[in-house]
Amino acid sequence: MNIAMLGSGFIARFYATTLHAQRRKDRILSVYSRNTSHAKKFAADFGLNKYGSEMEKIIQDPEVDAVIVALPNHLHEEAVLACVAAQKAVLCTKPLGRNASEAKRMLEAVEKAGIFAGYLEDLCYTSKFLKSLASIKAGNLGKILWTKSREAHPGPHSDWFWDKEQSGGGAIIDLGCHCVEISRNFIGKSIRPVEVMCWAATQVHPIDAEDHAIGLVKYENGAIGQFEVSWTFRGGMDLRDEVMGTEGTVWLNSFLRTGFEMFTTGKGENYIAEKAESDSGWLFPVGDESHELGYPQMFSDMFDAMEQGIEPQETFYDGYVVNAILDAAFLSAKSKKWEKVILEDWRGDSGIREEKSQVSYDEKYYLIKKEILPNGAEKVILKDKVTGEIKQKTIRD
Amino acid sequence: MNIAMLGSGFIARFYATTLHAQRRKDRILSVYSRNTSHAKKFAADFGLNKYGSEMEKIIQDPEVDAVIVALPNHLHEEAVLACVAAQKAVLCTKPLGRNASEAKRMLEAVEKAGIFAGYLEDLCYTSKFLKSLASIKAGNLGKILWTKSREAHPGPHSDWFWDKEQSGGGAIIDLGCHCVEISRNFIGKSIRPVEVMCWAATQVHPIDAEDHAIGLVKYENGAIGQFEVSWTFRGGMDLRDEVMGTEGTVWLNSFLRTGFEMFTTGKGENYIAEKAESDSGWLFPVGDESHELGYPQMFSDMFDAMEQGIEPQETFYDGYVVNAILDAAFLSAKSKKWEKVILEDWRGDSGIREEKSQVSYDEKYYLIKKEILPNGAEKVILKDKVTGEIKQKTIRD
Amino acid sequence: MNIAMLGSGFIARFYATTLHAQRRKDRILSVYSRNTSHAKKFAADFGLNKYGSEMEKIIQDPEVDAVIVALPNHLHEEAVLACVAAQKAVLCTKPLGRNASEAKRMLEAVEKAGIFAGYLEDLCYTSKFLKSLASIKAGNLGKILWTKSREAHPGPHSDWFWDKEQSGGGAIIDLGCHCVEISRNFIGKSIRPVEVMCWAATQVHPIDAEDHAIGLVKYENGAIGQFEVSWTFRGGMDLRDEVMGTEGTVWLNSFLRTGFEMFTTGKGENYIAEKAESDSGWLFPVGDESHELGYPQMFSDMFDAMEQGIEPQETFYDGYVVNAILDAAFLSAKSKKWEKVILEDWRGDSGIREEKSQVSYDEKYYLIKKEILPNGAEKVILKDKVTGEIKQKTIRD
Amino acid sequence: MNIAMLGSGFIARFYATTLHAQRRKDRILSVYSRNTSHAKKFAADFGLNKYGSEMEKIIQDPEVDAVIVALPNHLHEEAVLACVAAQKAVLCTKPLGRNASEAKRMLEAVEKAGIFAGYLEDLCYTSKFLKSLASIKAGNLGKILWTKSREAHPGPHSDWFWDKEQSGGGAIIDLGCHCVEISRNFIGKSIRPVEVMCWAATQVHPIDAEDHAIGLVKYENGAIGQFEVSWTFRGGMDLRDEVMGTEGTVWLNSFLRTGFEMFTTGKGENYIAEKAESDSGWLFPVGDESHELGYPQMFSDMFDAMEQGIEPQETFYDGYVVNAILDAAFLSAKSKKWEKVILEDWRGDSGIREEKSQVSYDEKYYLIKKEILPNGAEKVILKDKVTGEIKQKTIRD
Repeated sequence: MNIAMLGSGFIARFYATTLHAQRRKDRILSVYSRNTSHAKKFAADFGLNKYGSEMEKIIQDPEVDAVIVALPNHLHEEAVLACVAAQKAVLCTKPLGRNASEAKRMLEAVEKAGIFAGYLEDLCYTSKFLKSLASIKAGNLGKILWTKSREAHPGPHSDWFWDKEQSGGGAIIDLGCHCVEISRNFIGKSIRPVEVMCWAATQVHPIDAEDHAIGLVKYENGAIGQFEVSWTFRGGMDLRDEVMGTEGTVWLNSFLRTGFEMFTTGKGENYIAEKAESDSGWLFPVGDESHELGYPQMFSDMFDAMEQGIEPQETFYDGYVVNAILDAAFLSAKSKKWEKVILEDWRGDSGIREEKSQVSYDEKYYLIKKEILPNGAEKVILKDKVTGEIKQKTIRD
Repeated sequence: MNIAMLGSGFIARFYATTLHAQRRKDRILSVYSRNTSHAKKFAADFGLNKYGSEMEKIIQDPEVDAVIVALPNHLHEEAVLACVAAQKAVLCTKPLGRNASEAKRMLEAVEKAGIFAGYLEDLCYTSKFLKSLASIKAGNLGKILWTKSREAHPGPHSDWFWDKEQSGGGAIIDLGCHCVEISRNFIGKSIRPVEVMCWAATQVHPIDAEDHAIGLVKYENGAIGQFEVSWTFRGGMDLRDEVMGTEGTVWLNSFLRTGFEMFTTGKGENYIAEKAESDSGWLFPVGDESHELGYPQMFSDMFDAMEQGIEPQETFYDGYVVNAILDAAFLSAKSKKWEKVILEDWRGDSGIREEKSQVSYDEKYYLIKKEILPNGAEKVILKDKVTGEIKQKTIRD
Repeated sequence: MNIAMLGSGFIARFYATTLHAQRRKDRILSVYSRNTSHAKKFAADFGLNKYGSEMEKIIQDPEVDAVIVALPNHLHEEAVLACVAAQKAVLCTKPLGRNASEAKRMLEAVEKAGIFAGYLEDLCYTSKFLKSLASIKAGNLGKILWTKSREAHPGPHSDWFWDKEQSGGGAIIDLGCHCVEISRNFIGKSIRPVEVMCWAATQVHPIDAEDHAIGLVKYENGAIGQFEVSWTFRGGMDLRDEVMGTEGTVWLNSFLRTGFEMFTTGKGENYIAEKAESDSGWLFPVGDESHELGYPQMFSDMFDAMEQGIEPQETFYDGYVVNAILDAAFLSAKSKKWEKVILEDWRGDSGIREEKSQVSYDEKYYLIKKEILPNGAEKVILKDKVTGEIKQKTIRD
Repeated sequence: MNIAMLGSGFIARFYATTLHAQRRKDRILSVYSRNTSHAKKFAADFGLNKYGSEMEKIIQDPEVDAVIVALPNHLHEEAVLACVAAQKAVLCTKPLGRNASEAKRMLEAVEKAGIFAGYLEDLCYTSKFLKSLASIKAGNLGKILWTKSREAHPGPHSDWFWDKEQSGGGAIIDLGCHCVEISRNFIGKSIRPVEVMCWAATQVHPIDAEDHAIGLVKYENGAIGQFEVSWTFRGGMDLRDEVMGTEGTVWLNSFLRTGFEMFTTGKGENYIAEKAESDSGWLFPVGDESHELGYPQMFSDMFDAMEQGIEPQETFYDGYVVNAILDAAFLSAKSKKWEKVILEDWRGDSGIREEKSQVSYDEKYYLIKKEILPNGAEKVILKDKVTGEIKQKTIRD
């Protein structure tokens, strides 16, 4: 696969490093940057022959099989439309748009053009995520009741991220897009997100965008997908997910506690752990940052899907749904009440009701709880089916 | 200290076990239960000479120095008023009332009577909590921005807990009272809780009360105290707190991951870990459950305060504030919007504004972020004080 | 209980702090130090009326019920003999002696005098230890095969510890005494320790004693008790135990990972975590150091046993066995081979053989292993009872 | 790269799965098995056109660029010599030989033939290992004093492993080879391993080989590399490494605690965690087992080295040194004393002495320790350079 990279910043470099590692067969062919010298530097660093500041030219190159959009958020649409014009497969970094309208236009354009389009939502491709998702789909957690996805760190690397106009928001758009899609996968992509409640504030930085937010996304089956995002966290990069189901629990920690712990007085010469806030004391590096964040697995899925002519796991439609949820979150943060998720184009299930299990204990009672006490006795807590009265009964002393 | 215990159930036994352990000088003298045979059994188990089903008689006993109210929620007020009538020091289990009105009446009664009154909020007395609170008060975390307190397990032991009328609610009143007071301590008890947003649902059990809820409590200084409570959790008892401040982070785990891990095929003969859901496989017991939950430290503070004629760390006023916050949470769960916390009797600070730090980089710019890149280069992200434009600047290559 | 404290240093203060906390009924009455001004300072700090530098006088005081020996190792024997002379109950800090001869003389003296004598081995009283020991005794781990106890930190607080003559050795005598007794409890105190292999070296400090050692203690039933001790560890105080049995595993972490994690930029004003090597970055305090190290539980057992006229869990005999094992360790570190543990006075079981389980699969084969493969198939690995040939057999596809 | 796979069992399948994943450009071309039907099945599963039971034929195929030896230990030498005869690059699984003589013959054969030869020591390629090794080489831990590498699980999957003749031993040869090479890397490959002390026993299984062993490898610079290996562990696969240096500490956990925790009541339908001993309760899967164990990184290094004409990180010479150390371990387990490591062919440094740091405090004293007390005071512990006397001195109150 020959790839054109649009963008030469932090994320473009991360993508390129991933693609050129571990003897993968896909190669980056060319790079575009608005700034020619940045493009040239990037090309030199990754051994590319082609670079430039004319986006269309880079995209239209007949040798290019696929284009990766690794540009600031406000430039995604333009880049995607250029790929549509050139009929080139396109992979777009997250978030897809700054809002659902932008995302919907991109979605419709690629679908109309019939080109392959993938949504580069890396955190839905980490090995921990993929294995726990498979386990959840196999029923090991029963019905999913609640999920929590958290991403918090001391703030992004590039200036444009901090500017609401260019990025579309603050921590919600930057980090919330990950969290929302993680929860959506665990709860089930076919379950409709119905409404959102969100708190957001600018607690620390001299910016207009929010640097801290908490949101609850309610799904049609009663499940809640919670997101916690912050640019005010101290201590490194906090990436954790939790899932509660009727039959089990999943806890994932993708960064600060992964089985790699290190103490150093700091006498060594350099850089130890990414996004760590110090280089001495107890540090918690990850082994292979790009693998831990899901990049290699994501690109494998994308290119395998392209070759097989099927959809990747994360599509532009997913990106659109995420944007629609975040739109509701922004609204809610202002209106201070739950806001509906507006999805003009909904492709999942409809009309699912919140069902509660009513387990009968016998003809007269529902079972609320059965428990074994420390002394070995067993008791049940029951509810009268008619009167609603609640009582306990020892069934073994 | 001679103590009369009102109640003979799960929590009364926990309190008694704590008080009679570790060579403490305070002793339980007598026990009251609505059911004489329960009182008799309790007295036998703990070596007490006095027991009975007449509450006033037990309380008025001249040998009694202090009364512990360990009764179901709907009986707290009656018991507290009986202590007031008898002019006896009273320690009441959590929550103080089923709602703020009830709590306020108890508060006013004990204050008018001039008797010692303590609020038995054990989780604000765990050793981890006390040490982290001291550290936070010493400034190690800077300004507190957000706290999260979580308590989740598969549901309470006694029937009355599951009945909304007797308990005053479900997981919110049972577990939320802990979480709210933990966060209030970290944020600062003098900071006024202003409004609450809460989601609550009955997801699993055949009951009217909520078995799962998430709430955000907003404080006057802009800090958020989040609570997560559930009776639907699978895997044991999940007790975790988190604090984010401008200068640091605290993560506490009080139950499932405390440095005690055990695997067993299950061939041993008995009971291993409390509230564990199985007795084989990987188990995570705590060493000393009562210590881990703060009971001994709580009673020490209560009786030391009584002897010294000062207030304990947790008072009836605290119990009242907690109830007022939970009242707003219940309202919000129904109205689906933020609800004001109604505190007719507020004794803390007023008029605190949410302040944002605007750190000047130089005359022209505010500093948004300073960072050291992997290659050792240093860059700053700045905001123009006049135009608001955001830009980055490399200050060392 | 009225207690005379011999010693006014680090450990004496730790003991006193523990005893005077949590409304315990036992009180320290007096303190002895070789240095009167130290005794006076200690008395002032803990509110004692009596202090002095004449040891016999402090011990012989008729008001004294029990004496705690919290002196440097080379002064234990003299202090214990003075208690014997005064017929006072004596509790001696660890290690009992600098070697087995010294310990044996103390043991014989207290037994001949018929006084109560307790061995203050606090780490055999932590809540985690006590609960896991109970679980192991209940059979949850099957037969114990191997234990490992590890204590490592950057070195002791007082000068005399670093002097081989006064302390009896280095890290082995200081820390190994804990580790050996922990393993002995897990394996079973009635099982005879047979021989020891030990490596020891002075890797870092300009001292004669070892600052790092690893030892293996072999017990008569084939179990191994491993100790790892060091004064060269960087990162705080590492206190971990592991147990492997035929039916299970126990992992205990008593200090650096107990569910209390904290990050701070260091802007607060003071002291956060004991034995931490820094006051910024990620720190791992424990909630209540004295509880986590077993002090309150240890003194409760000692005084309860005294009152009940029974033996405490840790006796002078235990202290003597520990010294005998450490003597063999010192010998082995020099001879570079396994050395016998010389126990002239052995009170446990004798003649236990190392037994191996030979589980029959059927008449022809022993079962080596049964396993379920990822695809659900089941296979067994068998050994021919006659020929000894090993083969595998699929028993379910 | 076209690869011939010799072997079709557990490890061959693991290698093949790794190589054909993540869009890698290297492909397996053919497979050899002693049993044609096994070879045929393997070929079908991995989409290979060529398979067979004639090893030479498979190796000599002109299309083959490299041969992977994934056969039982007693067949390594024969397979390597066949590659030598065919002048084909060879990658041999661990351990290289059953003993140092066998390994040395293989080493000499490939060197004489001038073919590329790599030692497939995967655990020296995990991402955590590689990053911590880089950090250690950069000096962040100072001088390495001690390392511990531990591998323990309930025993291997295939019958031949349990047969001493075919495998060369038990847990020592199976797991110890990993541990020894991990420690050797951390301590420095150029430092000569001098002698070994080892305990080994058959504690549980009806076999002749050891199922549990602990060993200490002493290096010329005084560092100790400890290994702990067992086939008797209950609870899954325990893979942990620790490193202590004068300036820091590293703790790695590669399997049971990697940030993936799951509880399930077991109602789901299938296989959750590899080598877990149950499918309900708390489980600790790893995200991507092959990545966590270092396979992809290992093959990348091997093929990159082949293409660049350089040595891979792990060579046949390394395999030979490991075997020589394990030979000494087996000897020591029998002789019960330290045994010399016999290395007829030593290519590292020689004559390194154990050096101790003697830090001067001033003209008169060496510094033993400097510490800050809880009250902020600072003290030093010193040793007189002439008399050797140790004393403490408060340098700030």
